[in-house]
Amino acid sequence: MNRDCISADVIAMLRDLGTATIYEAQGAKGALDSGIKPIDPSMRLAGLAFTVDTRPADNLMLHYALLKAKRGDVLVVDAKAFMEAGPWGDVMTQQALQIGLAGLVINGAVRDAASIVEMGFPVFCRGLSIKSTGKNQRGEVNVPVCIGDVQINPGDIIVGDRDGLVVVRREEVEVAIRNSLARIEKEKLFREKIQNGVMTTELLGLDETLRSFNLI
Amino acid sequence: MNRDCISADVIAMLRDLGTATIYEAQGAKGALDSGIKPIDPSMRLAGLAFTVDTRPADNLMLHYALLKAKRGDVLVVDAKAFMEAGPWGDVMTQQALQIGLAGLVINGAVRDAASIVEMGFPVFCRGLSIKSTGKNQRGEVNVPVCIGDVQINPGDIIVGDRDGLVVVRREEVEVAIRNSLARIEKEKLFREKIQNGVMTTELLGLDETLRSFNLI
Amino acid sequence: MNRDCISADVIAMLRDLGTATIYEAQGAKGALDSGIKPIDPSMRLAGLAFTVDTRPADNLMLHYALLKAKRGDVLVVDAKAFMEAGPWGDVMTQQALQIGLAGLVINGAVRDAASIVEMGFPVFCRGLSIKSTGKNQRGEVNVPVCIGDVQINPGDIIVGDRDGLVVVRREEVEVAIRNSLARIEKEKLFREKIQNGVMTTELLGLDETLRSFNLI
Amino acid sequence: MNRDCISADVIAMLRDLGTATIYEAQGAKGALDSGIKPIDPSMRLAGLAFTVDTRPADNLMLHYALLKAKRGDVLVVDAKAFMEAGPWGDVMTQQALQIGLAGLVINGAVRDAASIVEMGFPVFCRGLSIKSTGKNQRGEVNVPVCIGDVQINPGDIIVGDRDGLVVVRREEVEVAIRNSLARIEKEKLFREKIQNGVMTTELLGLDETLRSFNLI
Amino acid sequence: MNRDCISADVIAMLRDLGTATIYEAQGAKGALDSGIKPIDPSMRLAGLAFTVDTRPADNLMLHYALLKAKRGDVLVVDAKAFMEAGPWGDVMTQQALQIGLAGLVINGAVRDAASIVEMGFPVFCRGLSIKSTGKNQRGEVNVPVCIGDVQINPGDIIVGDRDGLVVVRREEVEVAIRNSLARIEKEKLFREKIQNGVMTTELLGLDETLRSFNLI
Amino acid sequence: MNRDCISADVIAMLRDLGTATIYEAQGAKGALDSGIKPIDPSMRLAGLAFTVDTRPADNLMLHYALLKAKRGDVLVVDAKAFMEAGPWGDVMTQQALQIGLAGLVINGAVRDAASIVEMGFPVFCRGLSIKSTGKNQRGEVNVPVCIGDVQINPGDIIVGDRDGLVVVRREEVEVAIRNSLARIEKEKLFREKIQNGVMTTELLGLDETLRSFNLI
Repeated sequence: MNRDCISADVIAMLRDLGTATIYEAQGAKGALDSGIKPIDPSMRLAGLAFTVDTRPADNLMLHYALLKAKRGDVLVVDAKAFMEAGPWGDVMTQQALQIGLAGLVINGAVRDAASIVEMGFPVFCRGLSIKSTGKNQRGEVNVPVCIGDVQINPGDIIVGDRDGLVVVRREEVEVAIRNSLARIEKEKLFREKIQNGVMTTELLGLDETLRSFNLI
Repeated sequence: MNRDCISADVIAMLRDLGTATIYEAQGAKGALDSGIKPIDPSMRLAGLAFTVDTRPADNLMLHYALLKAKRGDVLVVDAKAFMEAGPWGDVMTQQALQIGLAGLVINGAVRDAASIVEMGFPVFCRGLSIKSTGKNQRGEVNVPVCIGDVQINPGDIIVGDRDGLVVVRREEVEVAIRNSLARIEKEKLFREKIQNGVMTTELLGLDETLRSFNLI
Repeated sequence: MNRDCISADVIAMLRDLGTATIYEAQGAKGALDSGIKPIDPSMRLAGLAFTVDTRPADNLMLHYALLKAKRGDVLVVDAKAFMEAGPWGDVMTQQALQIGLAGLVINGAVRDAASIVEMGFPVFCRGLSIKSTGKNQRGEVNVPVCIGDVQINPGDIIVGDRDGLVVVRREEVEVAIRNSLARIEKEKLFREKIQNGVMTTELLGLDETLRSFNLI
Repeated sequence: MNRDCISADVIAMLRDLGTATIYEAQGAKGALDSGIKPIDPSMRLAGLAFTVDTRPADNLMLHYALLKAKRGDVLVVDAKAFMEAGPWGDVMTQQALQIGLAGLVINGAVRDAASIVEMGFPVFCRGLSIKSTGKNQRGEVNVPVCIGDVQINPGDIIVGDRDGLVVVRREEVEVAIRNSLARIEKEKLFREKIQNGVMTTELLGLDETLRSFNLI
Repeated sequence: MNRDCISADVIAMLRDLGTATIYEAQGAKGALDSGIKPIDPSMRLAGLAFTVDTRPADNLMLHYALLKAKRGDVLVVDAKAFMEAGPWGDVMTQQALQIGLAGLVINGAVRDAASIVEMGFPVFCRGLSIKSTGKNQRGEVNVPVCIGDVQINPGDIIVGDRDGLVVVRREEVEVAIRNSLARIEKEKLFREKIQNGVMTTELLGLDETLRSFNLI
Repeated sequence: MNRDCISADVIAMLRDLGTATIYEAQGAKGALDSGIKPIDPSMRLAGLAFTVDTRPADNLMLHYALLKAKRGDVLVVDAKAFMEAGPWGDVMTQQALQIGLAGLVINGAVRDAASIVEMGFPVFCRGLSIKSTGKNQRGEVNVPVCIGDVQINPGDIIVGDRDGLVVVRREEVEVAIRNSLARIEKEKLFREKIQNGVMTTELLGLDETLRSFNLI
């Protein structure tokens, strides 16, 4: 897989695999904290991270990002977890859909949630606020940002679903997918065995540990 | 517009305009904090604030408010953000519907959420708690209350939707509506232009600012 | 009612009575804190508590509990309110359904929320996290645990719905049900009277208190 | 007492009376929330509020306030409770001392705490942050601000000590002081009686209430 | 050791042993959550728990407890973690000192912190608030209370220092002390060995575990 | 300056410069969040980061780190912000002093605070907990860790004081120091000018901005 070219199929596959599977498949890393969630539980998201570092309560850099981001990108915005401003709303959502962006991840809040859900644009955030933002402060785009104790680099793949968000490094996409598929296969087998009466302690080989604690 | 007589049509119009629009239209003020939300995302609310100042975990004054409030009023209750009591439930909701109240905003929690949603009464709160309340402590009604860093006066109009809550002073209703309608018109135009390929940076006149930062 | 034998009918009745009613009926006690909620608002739960005391971010003891719990039990897990790990997911849910467990209450987070909701297994928790757990630390099962300032003993009945969770001591089940039914009857009467124009202040006999404050 | 002229003696008296006494003396009102505290427990503060409404992470308006505030004023800044920026530091403290300001109350964080303590300037805030602020966003001075569910008007007197902060309306200063002195006298008497073996239940006349609960 | 008679020497010994040592010595149990701390870091506390279950923002039951508690008791008050009221202050502190109480632990806030520190009465709480309380709501004394996920029974011994609080069951006092002394002896030996160049991994026998992870 | 050899003098200089100055001097970056603070306000810290990634409530990797870290290192531990365990105490502090470590930064809690302060070892953490940790889970040392939205790499320099913590990349030490010294010089000049009556608005060149807002 060429690092510079992640195909739409690969992105779609990551979106379908789901965050918990990918997280485990790539070695239990890359998960954002539990406080950022989709504004509608049915939303799923995958795409290349177009990162934005902005001050709280100012969305100049988000408008700038809309000027620079490309079809399939996910805006990943560090708005400093400030909850009392909504730097993203329905007009920006329409612009994002026009460009073909794949979604928004914001360390902060948004507004116009009802419209955004109706427009079908995946937004992951910490909450909703109608409070206003300025449009006059400098920030940066396409720099590494740290959100929820995970560093996200421009061009990383970010995947989201009801459970949360996970970041996949470009160079690890192939192995993440391969391991995810293997994990899904293994879990499918687990399910069949469970239906046949096998216990998870046996499936996961926990008997020895339990015995060492005199539990079985 | 007569200060003493806000018509049902005006209230309905405010409810339909939505909180984010009204907030901006009246000069970016009057928004409650992001922690108070409807118990069902589809709920919308508008009405005259009937304010209640009560101690945490005591609902005597809410029953008193039900005795005094009028058709179309919204009870706006400062229960001190205490989360471990639910001073409002389904019986009170039925009383409120009987009176014709327009909804409840409470700085605290409620219970019987499933019933309340079914009964179709708009309730905005910080969470749900089944824990009990006393009915023996004095409080006040129809006094200014401060919730989420906003002062709400008796007779102010309070509007709520999925995004949150905004307060409109009686004497500013007319200008809030006028500006909201203008804003909606402008945003409609923005949407059309976006569909025709214009970027938000151009629509909002951000180019100069971006140039001053050497971003474009 | 025999303490050792709570019938399925009794459990079902408790589930239908709802948490707020039971909480009040048993003397305003047994409610867990407001931070633990069902992952889907329509979920209801009732069953005998099979308690699990585990370290944060380790699910060895949850697998062990799946080995030991019986049909109709609810796993009540103290995972120390740690939000950045999901010690329960879809494979364990399938195992739980296979055994016939009645649900999960966890002082912490879970993952695979979408699948769990689809599988119809009631889960009450503080949030969702995809982050991983170890499977190597000792804990205890069937010991009293304290969650949200309530002690839950093995064999207590735990009941949950959209409003939250309440614990019923085995020896108090009968009185809890009896009082709940009486309370429902009383509230039904209240509703009828409210429809006939009686106010809650009169129904609840609050007039004297209000008069003592010179409010009426 | 002339509303336009609160003497330095009156201010000093309020500072010495302490927040808890004044709060009770003026009818249990005017207390800010428990999250704003002095950066050193020994700090005490009293003065006329010079209010500042600013965006998070921008201190242009604080510099402007330093230009406009007068000797004896306390800057009361609503920085929107944003914790990840320190809009006030040692240079501004020196300016404030030069002007003769009586202190700073900020709904947010500050930096250079060690120097500020050493310089002896009373600062009340929510925490400490070294993170930077812009100096380019408009705000307002001498407008009412709501912090911690209390409205503070320009010219109100604000008093702080280890326990927290309380606001006294100008027109209520006289009565607040008179009642505070009476309260101190009464508490002194209480202390003497306690030393002579009288219990607080008797001093406060709680026996009847306790008897009504069959507690005594 | 007679369960009904814990000598003052035993209490003093527990106070000196310190919370972390006792907690470990009795099998890693009994610790309250990390949010309750002494109002002055030098405060230490030990005594028999006189428990109080009260509503938030009402201190009638605290005055009642002062009537009933005995020399050497520690009031352990569940005020429901409500932070915006201070149900304990300097007058009550004087009463407590008069009676000879050993301290206060409150799941909530207090006021008059400066005076209390000066009077030398150990108080452990979640914060400081000057806001007022009623004196008219029923509660209970000498019942088990759950604070910070630990149940505290009347007559349990509660010990506090800068690190926090730990509860010792009466019937486990002897073993807690014996194990604490052994632990202190062992740690003293550890310290000597560390000074002689032995590493903690060797002292604690962690080499095998580290080797199993290929770390050494 | 050789990247592989940061002299003790350079470290000492960084410690003396202070966090706020360094943060600004290196371009307003590298500050950890406001929730991690020294356990005693007088503590200062500077040294090379020896990073540790550990599970919550397990300190095996901290003991391992003590085996591997070198004189002058600061242990920088990501314990996942879990507050209900104290993976560091007085015995480990003694080991750290024996080795000559420069301090501890932990994304979590510690215990034995009184002893640690007495021993004079700088510890920066989120709080204090006496609760126990296991010693049996794998983690990693000398890998990049993200704490409070900042990535810290092994060998970065970490500096702490009462205001908080800041990270300096090795390759940026020289410029950070140079700019810090210049900044201190500039602020010294500011102070002199302030004493001579110059206002901060003039010193910082804010007049134009204020004029653009019609404020002056």
